[in-house]
Order: sequence, then structure tokens, then C-alpha cells
Amino acid sequence: MRLSPEEARARFAAARVARLASVDAAGQPHLVPVTFVVIDDRVFHAVDRKPKRTTGLKRLRNIAATGMVALLCDYYDDDWARLWWVRADGRAELWTDTTRCASVFAALRAKYPQYVREPPVGPVVAVRVERWSGWAASQPGHGGRDSSVSTV
Amino acid sequence: MRLSPEEARARFAAARVARLASVDAAGQPHLVPVTFVVIDDRVFHAVDRKPKRTTGLKRLRNIAATGMVALLCDYYDDDWARLWWVRADGRAELWTDTTRCASVFAALRAKYPQYVREPPVGPVVAVRVERWSGWAASQPGHGGRDSSVSTV
Repeated sequence: MRLSPEEARARFAAARVARLASVDAAGQPHLVPVTFVVIDDRVFHAVDRKPKRTTGLKRLRNIAATGMVALLCDYYDDDWARLWWVRADGRAELWTDTTRCASVFAALRAKYPQYVREPPVGPVVAVRVERWSGWAASQPGHGGRDSSVSTV
Repeated sequence: MRLSPEEARARFAAARVARLASVDAAGQPHLVPVTFVVIDDRVFHAVDRKPKRTTGLKRLRNIAATGMVALLCDYYDDDWARLWWVRADGRAELWTDTTRCASVFAALRAKYPQYVREPPVGPVVAVRVERWSGWAASQPGHGGRDSSVSTV
């Protein structure tokens, strides 16, 4: 069954991980898992200190080049009656201004305590969501939790 | 740490769900979770009977239009020392020929017993992988299982 935009947004906001698809100028898509927060009708991701080549990250180059993105959260289970996914399609821009980024960093720290010890450094990927959509194999209540909910 | 192409391919092949990014002619990315099998250097997905609007699926229209895709499998855990992801970047084409699709359907049935009762109907999305890549926060052995492994 298709999910309403409101239900899709609610499931999305509660998930712990999303996959960010961006596209380069030649039209090649790029995919990477990201942490994020939802504030109003925006999804925010920030580059953090997890070991990676931070400078010149492909996701940032793509967003600077085209700005077209999609983000997906999903639940997988071999019991396919429990499957669901939610997607945010929109336009992204990069924020580097310290003041503007501060509230995003604070929201990320509130959602992910891991960031208290190692704060994200930015830039911030700010996605204005133009469409929330989603699908679930069955009614809420039957289905599974977000597969990214920690079992620790 | 970055994963070798061989390690990335192995983790990818063992995962139960991937996220397929495709791109339309206007450069807008689309994302959807998919079941799949890896055979040699190709990733195969087939449209199945899960309730959805099968005709005119956006992923199929995008692949017919541009053929540029990326697929991602990842593991999330609030213990970030256990994070990993693997990605396949490549070119996709659609297969509808019954004979050509039959071996893909057989491989999908072998991986997903759910398909024995409800076989996929196609078309098949055949992705020739040009690059396997990946990242893990720590050495294999420490990290978590694929988050999509069933807990049922």
C-alpha cells in the first residue's frame, strides 16, 4: 500500500540511516549511507569525522554541480509482509556558514549521541523536500521496525 | 578503511537488499530498495509481484532513458565501529527475453525462497558493474552482519 506524505515523512524522520543519491553533471548517480535529521520540510546531513576523504567528497561535488537528490529509508525482512520504504525527493544545497550550520549540528547531536564526543564538521547538505512518498507491504502495527534501529 | 573490490563484491553478493539509484533524462535521481543476485560482474534485479504499479515503473523508465545506475548495500548500527557499506556503479539494461531472463529468475528463487511461490515476472534489470567499492569502520570480524539479514 502507498503511504501518505505525512506517514512517509514520520517514518523517515524516525529512521537512523538514509541513503543519499546525488548525480554528477554527466548524469551518473552516486549513493552513500548518511546520518540525518528532518526539520520541517527539510532533510539535513552533515559531513562528520568518520574516517573518509572529506575534501572533495563526491556527494558534495555532485550537489554543487546539479543539486538533484533523493533519500531513502527502508526496512527489510525475509518476511516480506513487513517490508516498507520511504523516500524524500528534492533539491540540495551546501551550507558552510557557521551560524546557519550550528542548529543543524545541535539537532544531529540530539538524535545521535555519538556526535557529542565527535561533532560533525560540515559542510551541511540541506535538502528541500519536494515530495515525500513511500510504500508498505501491510498496515502499520504488523510491520517491522526500521532495520537501522540499533540492537545494541 | 576502504574495502578492496573483491571484499566489496563479496559483501554485496551476500546482502539481502540493495538500494537502486537510477536517473531520468532530466538528471533527477530515483531510489528504491530491490532484491537482487550477483552473477560474475553483474547485478540482476527483476520486477516481482509485490503490490506496486508494475507498468511504467520509474526505475524502468529511467534505465531505458539513461542506463546509469548505482546500487548500495549497507550496515547501520548505533555502534559506529560496526558501520560498513558497499557500492556497485555501472550501466543497466532491461531484459525481457524469456530465455535470457530464466536463469536470472532461477538465481533469484535460489536466493529468496519467497520467489518459489510467487516468481518474479520481469523485466530484468541487468547491471554491468564497472566499479565495486566500499568502506568499513573497522576490520572484518569486529563489524556487524548485514542489517538486512532476517531476524525471523
